[in-house]
Amino acid sequence: MPATSEQKPKAVVTHSSGNHGQALAYTAKLEGIPAYIVVPQTAPNCKKLAIQAYGASIVYSEQSDESRENVTRRIMEETEGIMIHPNQEPAVIAGQGTIAMEVLNQVPLVDALVVPVGGGGMVAGIAITVKALRPSVKVYAAEPLNADDCYQSKLKGELTPNPYPPETIADGVKSSIGSNTWPIIRDLVDDVFTVTEDEIKYATQLVWERMKLLIEPTAGVGVAAVLSQHFQTVSPEVKNVCIVLSGGNVDLTSITWVKQAERPAPYQSVCV
Amino acid sequence: MPATSEQKPKAVVTHSSGNHGQALAYTAKLEGIPAYIVVPQTAPNCKKLAIQAYGASIVYSEQSDESRENVTRRIMEETEGIMIHPNQEPAVIAGQGTIAMEVLNQVPLVDALVVPVGGGGMVAGIAITVKALRPSVKVYAAEPLNADDCYQSKLKGELTPNPYPPETIADGVKSSIGSNTWPIIRDLVDDVFTVTEDEIKYATQLVWERMKLLIEPTAGVGVAAVLSQHFQTVSPEVKNVCIVLSGGNVDLTSITWVKQAERPAPYQSVCV
Repeated sequence: MPATSEQKPKAVVTHSSGNHGQALAYTAKLEGIPAYIVVPQTAPNCKKLAIQAYGASIVYSEQSDESRENVTRRIMEETEGIMIHPNQEPAVIAGQGTIAMEVLNQVPLVDALVVPVGGGGMVAGIAITVKALRPSVKVYAAEPLNADDCYQSKLKGELTPNPYPPETIADGVKSSIGSNTWPIIRDLVDDVFTVTEDEIKYATQLVWERMKLLIEPTAGVGVAAVLSQHFQTVSPEVKNVCIVLSGGNVDLTSITWVKQAERPAPYQSVCV
Repeated sequence: MPATSEQKPKAVVTHSSGNHGQALAYTAKLEGIPAYIVVPQTAPNCKKLAIQAYGASIVYSEQSDESRENVTRRIMEETEGIMIHPNQEPAVIAGQGTIAMEVLNQVPLVDALVVPVGGGGMVAGIAITVKALRPSVKVYAAEPLNADDCYQSKLKGELTPNPYPPETIADGVKSSIGSNTWPIIRDLVDDVFTVTEDEIKYATQLVWERMKLLIEPTAGVGVAAVLSQHFQTVSPEVKNVCIVLSGGNVDLTSITWVKQAERPAPYQSVCV
């Protein structure tokens, strides 16, 4: 039975400038629930516009985790709304797992999935699904070197958030993994590959020029990981690699970095 | 049986900076035949680089039809090569017709195809195929207002080339239709829609931002045509419209026009 209006929350609140913010804005609109999306002031303009286009209200925070959480808490109190966390909410993690179901159905011969990691909801959901349905398939996280909390956590064996707001062009994965995604990542993600800013820019531009897909740099992180020298150490039995390209929120009016993106040294021999 | 080297031409020559130039360069390389592609000096850098990457030699001409033809003739004599015309060659026109076969197979309920027109090879091949296999399906040509030789030809009932080199951002359709494509277009293309430069830029940016496909402005011409007010006059029975998006050679280092591309007035009500 459809939910009655009595069962609906008075408002939904989240912090995310990416696809989660847009998805919550859109769904809340369909359900007639006010949505408030907390966004860092530095977020790309196109992401803010998309959230507003889907009918949600934007509330600005500073870039730090602390400011984001303080603003979110204040908005929840003011609106009597409930929080739908972009990556620690179990239902969101489960929803991300459907990506892996689609991949396993559409590409039965896949040997590995490569997934960008920020808060870790997507890679956690995918890892749960893959290891439940096809445990021989590898799940690799891809992460900017400048925001390598997932890599550091795996290395140390304990949750190790980024010590300060990371500087990376892959703005969709600036968040640190959290208490819900960490145990899943610790137990089910096979490896983490870190990539430099130049590698991310080069990979993003490669996808634009050769695949004609307008991905955002965050989606380029996975491509950069597969092109990296470190990835050469992956077992030769891993032949069919699926890279999750998420998302596609490119601020076309500010892609001045394209002009500066030189092909990084390790790729000089890659045929493009 | 495969062709022996005796049967192969000494060289192949064409004038095209777009997909035809790249396709000929690639095929000639596979066959071990030298390829010479005549390209206007003003062509986007990415197109020149792609042709060279496929192993062909670039020869520059001025932008006029006359210079292009003179240079092409000279290269044919010097290399004893044969001309593979980018849009008047019957085999090329037939090859373009396979686009329509794919569309009719994959989208059985299609009511119309919209195809950008420059030299007219693509729209002619598509029109022949559609009218042979499914004559009730409409074939519409889409053309920049600044290079409207196809529109003028249909209006006057006689081949009417562009009087001078056209100025349009859709550089892939600057050519005029020719003596082989004109009779096909005259008899089999249902209508021609012209679009302004602003409409082309807006449509291209719309496809980038919302479909995440990195098309070049020439491919945006068909999208602009379907969004135009003139297209509203098409019969309401035409519901499923397929736009051929060709091509995707975008010079990312020079897309400064994106910043200036305002939404043209007729589209204010279109929800994006």
